[in-house]
Amino acid sequence: MDAMTDEIATLRGRYAGGAAYLDGEFMPLAEAKIPVTHWGYRRSDVTYDVVGVRDGRFFRLDDHIRRFRNSMTALHMEPPEGDAEIRDILMKLVLMADVRDAYVSMECLRASPAPGALRHPASCRSYLSCSAVPWISVVSPEMEVRGMHLMIPKVKRIPPSSFDPRVKNFHWGDLTEGMFEAKEAGADFAVLTDETGNVTEGPGFNVFCIVNGRVITPARGGLDGITRLSVFELCEELGLPLEIRDVTVEEFVNADEIFACTTAGGIMPATRIDGRILGNDVPGPISMQLKETFWQKRAEGWHGTEVL
Amino acid sequence: MDAMTDEIATLRGRYAGGAAYLDGEFMPLAEAKIPVTHWGYRRSDVTYDVVGVRDGRFFRLDDHIRRFRNSMTALHMEPPEGDAEIRDILMKLVLMADVRDAYVSMECLRASPAPGALRHPASCRSYLSCSAVPWISVVSPEMEVRGMHLMIPKVKRIPPSSFDPRVKNFHWGDLTEGMFEAKEAGADFAVLTDETGNVTEGPGFNVFCIVNGRVITPARGGLDGITRLSVFELCEELGLPLEIRDVTVEEFVNADEIFACTTAGGIMPATRIDGRILGNDVPGPISMQLKETFWQKRAEGWHGTEVL
Repeated sequence: MDAMTDEIATLRGRYAGGAAYLDGEFMPLAEAKIPVTHWGYRRSDVTYDVVGVRDGRFFRLDDHIRRFRNSMTALHMEPPEGDAEIRDILMKLVLMADVRDAYVSMECLRASPAPGALRHPASCRSYLSCSAVPWISVVSPEMEVRGMHLMIPKVKRIPPSSFDPRVKNFHWGDLTEGMFEAKEAGADFAVLTDETGNVTEGPGFNVFCIVNGRVITPARGGLDGITRLSVFELCEELGLPLEIRDVTVEEFVNADEIFACTTAGGIMPATRIDGRILGNDVPGPISMQLKETFWQKRAEGWHGTEVL
Repeated sequence: MDAMTDEIATLRGRYAGGAAYLDGEFMPLAEAKIPVTHWGYRRSDVTYDVVGVRDGRFFRLDDHIRRFRNSMTALHMEPPEGDAEIRDILMKLVLMADVRDAYVSMECLRASPAPGALRHPASCRSYLSCSAVPWISVVSPEMEVRGMHLMIPKVKRIPPSSFDPRVKNFHWGDLTEGMFEAKEAGADFAVLTDETGNVTEGPGFNVFCIVNGRVITPARGGLDGITRLSVFELCEELGLPLEIRDVTVEEFVNADEIFACTTAGGIMPATRIDGRILGNDVPGPISMQLKETFWQKRAEGWHGTEVL
């Protein structure tokens, strides 16, 4: 990245607040726009991934790029950039945006068929849209202290037989409807179930519950989250028994503790669900132990890659 | 529209090939681009409708605008423009694009929350993106003659419990995957089933089958198509018995005739499904009667609104 240093220093002013890379070009985020004709928008024919930067260090950068590549392959997409180039682009974006704490997105979307070509996704090229912006958390500072208030909405999560949730995607209609149901119910977020009454995930986060000291998370119906994977590692390190299996809504709602986890927020304890108050309305002890260990290890450089 | 005539005449050259209206401004389609930060793209938080123009006449314009308004309301969206204004915008776009046969799209999408606002869709304004382009048909001239070749893919249609298919939307991941399965199988298009094995719809079209002279279409799991509604009217006029009910994949695949219908293609007979050849590989008689009556009535101005 050394050859870029001067260029980056020059551009920083313009790129502060958000830097983007779109279809082969770097630009300020405010200038990054997608043609309305492209199927990435018109058919939500796009996959993405998000990696966090805290204190100038990416968290599990290569794990995110690996998952992003798997998602692109699942959707039959192959942009011009290889994994090493994607890594360089993300690094450069964080430097341009000039932030120590960043939310870094990588997306691959399909264009539209050339005139005269068959109107089939296989006729369309795919291209990258990446960006780095100052850190965004899904939880407000208030929620960080009091815990998240969750609810179970009527809308069901799109099932894996229709769209594999492990391929991170923008099919958020169900999650968006869940957010309106949550607002109506006075909750912060919805956690969606599947048709059989098992818990899946919320808008942008995985969920865990804790029952009799056991840490439990749904085996399917949601993203194979990288923060979720990190929780698995923390459970092993802390000697907490972990169960990855179907979780019914009854078990979840009646658990001792509940927490959510995501790149954009880390580990986020919940204190209410469907109006039920958990643990005297304060984040539970095992959730807090996981949350504190997570951030402590992050500060020590766990799975970190310096931005340079 | 008279006051606009001079302006339109001036703009026609620039707008030929495609005219757009985006967030309050008219522009050539090639300039219509959406910020990558907007949730209409990032969360596919958008609804749309498409109306056809043939021989300078919209088909069922007010029915499309009414459905579009219902879809926006279902998604809690309210753009600044009322229905009469949307009607005027679509008229103007067709005049600008200077085409007698046009594919006219209206979309409403959510922006992103203002800085500091709650990251909730209720915090976001919604805006329109509309366009008129020369007529696009989902069927090629070759398919028009030989009939469509269909197949039933493994992927299932997103269920109504996750996203109501009557709210026309860009959650096309399942339909796109179906198109890849169709390509693999050597077919033109996939017709998706639901989890219980009932037929739903294909990528952008409703389906009908004909068994013992009865015209049958799935009652649910797909769009309440406006061309589908027109087929209901044609059945009544032609004295064809109509059944709107669940259709199992077995009944569908073994039907006497099959046809698809959509704004972008009208009534489109199929001649093969899952490799099975229907009616000696030529479009069936009832399908053809419906198709010919449809276009004849269209030519006579049925449900038409002059572009002027």
